[in-house]
Amino acid sequence: MIDVCLLGTGGMMPLPGRWLSSVLVRVQGRLLLLDCGEGTQISLKQVGWGFKPLDAICISHYHADHVAGLVGMLLMLANSDRTEEVSLYGPVGLAAVVEGQRRIAPCLPYPLRCAELRGGETFEAIGLRAQVLAADHGIPCLAYRFDLPRAPRFAPERAEALGLPRELWKLLQQGQTVQWGGRRVEPGEVLGEERAGLALGYVTDTRPTPAMPAFFHEVDLLICEGTYGDDSQLDRAQERKHMTFSEAARLARQAQARRLWLTHFSPSLERPRDYLEQATREFPGAVVGEDHLQTTLRFP
Amino acid sequence: MIDVCLLGTGGMMPLPGRWLSSVLVRVQGRLLLLDCGEGTQISLKQVGWGFKPLDAICISHYHADHVAGLVGMLLMLANSDRTEEVSLYGPVGLAAVVEGQRRIAPCLPYPLRCAELRGGETFEAIGLRAQVLAADHGIPCLAYRFDLPRAPRFAPERAEALGLPRELWKLLQQGQTVQWGGRRVEPGEVLGEERAGLALGYVTDTRPTPAMPAFFHEVDLLICEGTYGDDSQLDRAQERKHMTFSEAARLARQAQARRLWLTHFSPSLERPRDYLEQATREFPGAVVGEDHLQTTLRFP
Repeated sequence: MIDVCLLGTGGMMPLPGRWLSSVLVRVQGRLLLLDCGEGTQISLKQVGWGFKPLDAICISHYHADHVAGLVGMLLMLANSDRTEEVSLYGPVGLAAVVEGQRRIAPCLPYPLRCAELRGGETFEAIGLRAQVLAADHGIPCLAYRFDLPRAPRFAPERAEALGLPRELWKLLQQGQTVQWGGRRVEPGEVLGEERAGLALGYVTDTRPTPAMPAFFHEVDLLICEGTYGDDSQLDRAQERKHMTFSEAARLARQAQARRLWLTHFSPSLERPRDYLEQATREFPGAVVGEDHLQTTLRFP
Repeated sequence: MIDVCLLGTGGMMPLPGRWLSSVLVRVQGRLLLLDCGEGTQISLKQVGWGFKPLDAICISHYHADHVAGLVGMLLMLANSDRTEEVSLYGPVGLAAVVEGQRRIAPCLPYPLRCAELRGGETFEAIGLRAQVLAADHGIPCLAYRFDLPRAPRFAPERAEALGLPRELWKLLQQGQTVQWGGRRVEPGEVLGEERAGLALGYVTDTRPTPAMPAFFHEVDLLICEGTYGDDSQLDRAQERKHMTFSEAARLARQAQARRLWLTHFSPSLERPRDYLEQATREFPGAVVGEDHLQTTLRFP
């Protein structure tokens, strides 16, 4: 399963009562963070999922509202006595941004790894398979998709037919090859049909692009920016390379996402829920995100 | 008069319910900020004194908890449509720190001026005369003193003896020379004795130094770090180059400060007021600061 929490839902600047957009993801006790604006570390403390297990931070782009909290987050990890490597992911330029930010935090007690991405890459983090897509925001910006694969169903009748003792079943189920009866038994011999895993999508600070519906195809949860609530602000959304609620909802529908959470609200959008209907017209289950909204994605 | 507000009172890291140490100073509608850690812009919004009139930001030193909020603050000023120059003051290295931070905020609609200080300098900001003193914190660190001079008393009997019409009195009182009766009249001819002004001191992240009592002599308010509440933590204070409550209070007493506010509490100091008595033993009027504590310093 995947636990997901919106650490913040604001865009542009942190406000009293609304942290900047950021998502905390947890798989088997390990944490991954999506974006890290000013104040994200405080919101993370409020949520109480811990911070020492934070293995990876993925940055969408280098506007301050998505990355200015990075140095504070890295120092908080340092203060948690972490010594394991922390991986940072972001568009090209990440190393320079991190070097600039770290002029006020030159010493960290753990290795920091920076992976610069352009879109099209995949990587593994906290047990998730991540894919990266270039977004459309004026400066390099990335959308992320995270898949948690599910092992195929175990077929006990096949294991029994092979005469395998039960203590070997679990190893095969976990994908390991075992020795039995003088030969190697491969997991494929005792596993049944493939099963769908779980998928989470995150995209912010972009116009919708033609590649996005396929990229987010059938995600269990799409967390998508909706900077502007009202369709009347479409001009502004186009000019500033953001989305309206209805555009985000249309993307979720086109992607056949199972759920949609809107986030990254403009500071001018004081009561984003007032515009919910503009999203539900396109995607009936759309949810207007709020700070600390949480869910757990579970295998069916 | 000088309005003073503690925007935060925490050290090391921002906490839910305690912003990082920062002080907002207001004179005749203009604002000056002392230190700017992560989240300071949010606290400043909560206080509601506005932000567009923020003319100067003075940084004590370049540990993240005193400067990581700078880029967010500069962007907030940008969003307030400010076009007037903003002045930054801090130890040597300021330009490099600002350049590093601004990699995520390269464009600002106003000029930014960086003044690098070593201690011993004076400058003018928002009508205050600032003095700078080198502190003792392992990395370059500065203490600041701000004086608001008061015009000498106006002596109406002298003005009358000169036969000056009343419409010229105010100009002379403001320090301007005027023409009357075919000659120049200097302000000194109609002004009485000198009068004491107001003074504010700010010092954090340092051991007490021998120069501090004279530097802060008779300030109306000393805002001083008290990272550790209990004298039993003196070893730690010495090792990490901070002060205990009683050391801060002793400094206030030696300086003959009129008031003392303690700030910059360690995250381990959950209830700083529990240690108030350790300060009042040395300086009876000591106050344990709290976020958004405000006062107005007035001419007597």
